Amino acid sequence: MRSEFDIIRRHFTRPVNNAVLGVGDDGALIAAAPDRELVIAVDTLVANQHFFESSDPRKLGHKVLAVNLSDMAAMGAIPRWATLALTLPNYLAHKNEIWLKEFAEGFYTLAQDYQVELIGGDTTQGPLNITVQIIGEVERGKALLRSGAKVGDDIWISGLLGDAALALAHEQRSFLLKPEEYNQCMPALYTPVARVELGRRLINIANSAIDISDGLIADLGHILENSQVAATIKFNDIACSNSLKKYLRHPLAVNCLLAGGDDYELCFTASRSKRNKIQDISLNLGILLSRIGKVKPGKGLTILDKEGKEILVEKTGYDHFSA
Amino acid sequence: MRSEFDIIRRHFTRPVNNAVLGVGDDGALIAAAPDRELVIAVDTLVANQHFFESSDPRKLGHKVLAVNLSDMAAMGAIPRWATLALTLPNYLAHKNEIWLKEFAEGFYTLAQDYQVELIGGDTTQGPLNITVQIIGEVERGKALLRSGAKVGDDIWISGLLGDAALALAHEQRSFLLKPEEYNQCMPALYTPVARVELGRRLINIANSAIDISDGLIADLGHILENSQVAATIKFNDIACSNSLKKYLRHPLAVNCLLAGGDDYELCFTASRSKRNKIQDISLNLGILLSRIGKVKPGKGLTILDKEGKEILVEKTGYDHFSA
Repeated sequence: MRSEFDIIRRHFTRPVNNAVLGVGDDGALIAAAPDRELVIAVDTLVANQHFFESSDPRKLGHKVLAVNLSDMAAMGAIPRWATLALTLPNYLAHKNEIWLKEFAEGFYTLAQDYQVELIGGDTTQGPLNITVQIIGEVERGKALLRSGAKVGDDIWISGLLGDAALALAHEQRSFLLKPEEYNQCMPALYTPVARVELGRRLINIANSAIDISDGLIADLGHILENSQVAATIKFNDIACSNSLKKYLRHPLAVNCLLAGGDDYELCFTASRSKRNKIQDISLNLGILLSRIGKVKPGKGLTILDKEGKEILVEKTGYDHFSA
Repeated sequence: MRSEFDIIRRHFTRPVNNAVLGVGDDGALIAAAPDRELVIAVDTLVANQHFFESSDPRKLGHKVLAVNLSDMAAMGAIPRWATLALTLPNYLAHKNEIWLKEFAEGFYTLAQDYQVELIGGDTTQGPLNITVQIIGEVERGKALLRSGAKVGDDIWISGLLGDAALALAHEQRSFLLKPEEYNQCMPALYTPVARVELGRRLINIANSAIDISDGLIADLGHILENSQVAATIKFNDIACSNSLKKYLRHPLAVNCLLAGGDDYELCFTASRSKRNKIQDISLNLGILLSRIGKVKPGKGLTILDKEGKEILVEKTGYDHFSA
């Protein structure tokens, strides 16, 4: 039977190159560059809320880091260091440690792709709860904020929205997809890709940015609120997969697209004068970037259908504590 | 009924002075001083493992920050910024929010004492789990590490050990204290004081340091292992409260002292030549500092009773996943 210290030593201690000191002391040590600011974000995944306890641990290890990388992307930051607070039920810690081994592999594989170093953490026993805190770097004064949207800005989104929510609806049996449709949507739910490189390229181009984790309406809403502006977007310009498009007559599918969340795409605003540059970035990175609307003076978000009529949406985004 | 965003806005958003950007965007922004290193630590408190779910939320808010401050103390760092990942059962989020209000008060009261700023976090729903990550600053190359102990060093501890574990034993009915004894021990369990100022003063004086969270044997053991040295300590030199001293014939009380944990005192080693300076610090801060033993060449920890006979201890420290 392994102890807490063995778990850390066996699964979560790898050499660090960019930190002065990594796992194994009371704290980790990092030295920040003087021309940079550090960007700090933290995200938790809770069993039976964000994932099923029976989920593939490798995908969990990937996802908990990916959702944090997505926060770095939304700030335009280079992700650098992470800590992991892992609360584990006893049975997962002891089942031949396969769960831990695979979780760590999923985490480190993605971490290596981005040269992110795990520099510390805490391992405790209890209901499965995974918190990752991430530290990134961004040039001083250059971070992409939610508060910078300007009247007249175009509103853009990256990638396709709604697939993660649709896959989840299928798993929860509130919507029935065909096997090939589910297979198309599922990666968005389990192995989301954070738009880190896109975030970096948007520095000096976007006026504001956020990652879409709670759903487009809620997250664009945060930009509008923080920037004290309004917006109008066109429903038909919001890019989605063929699987989702087929079902857009169903209110649930519309909801997945507008308010499902778990997309980890970026929503950003930029002056009209940046359109060419943004199209170049899109081609360069091979990421679809769609212009979906305009920032206006005032308050609130209006969504128009193809006839120009307003679409009213009941659920505006994921909220842990709403009724 | 409050939403996740309301909870953050109402309870966990206060102005920041030392961060470029605090709560409310995808990440927080801090600017680190170029002559410093950043020290990062993270600690989780899990309901029914570290505390009872019915515990006073104000004390919980204090304790979860205090245990992280203690990691900063053990590194000799100035604590500066914190993030909070709070997983809350629905009933605690909604019970008139009294729980949240009091938790936040306990947290912020201690944070203000140390001028620590809460700059970010995540609020999720699930079994009660509280993770705080803390970021501090220390002069470059000056952090107190576990790996610096040298043969010939004195071994020191701050304060009194064992009271927190004794109070817990009383609450779990494995030991029966008199009311006045319980009252004396209880603050160590619920409102521990981190030795931040002591840690700062030990820079350039101590060769190694750790905070005693898992118990003296386990934590001093980490110093010995990381420094590749052995040690001998004298049981009778380990300072403890009168309440605990009375019971030292009971193995459970001995265990509380040596291996109980939750002390959040510092254990450090320093050259014999620093004794006067250390006594000055003790007088200056009004903190008892006891010299309990010596670092030796070799491997392992020996504990001697007043006759010079070795004491053998069964349980060497708190471990979440031991059998």
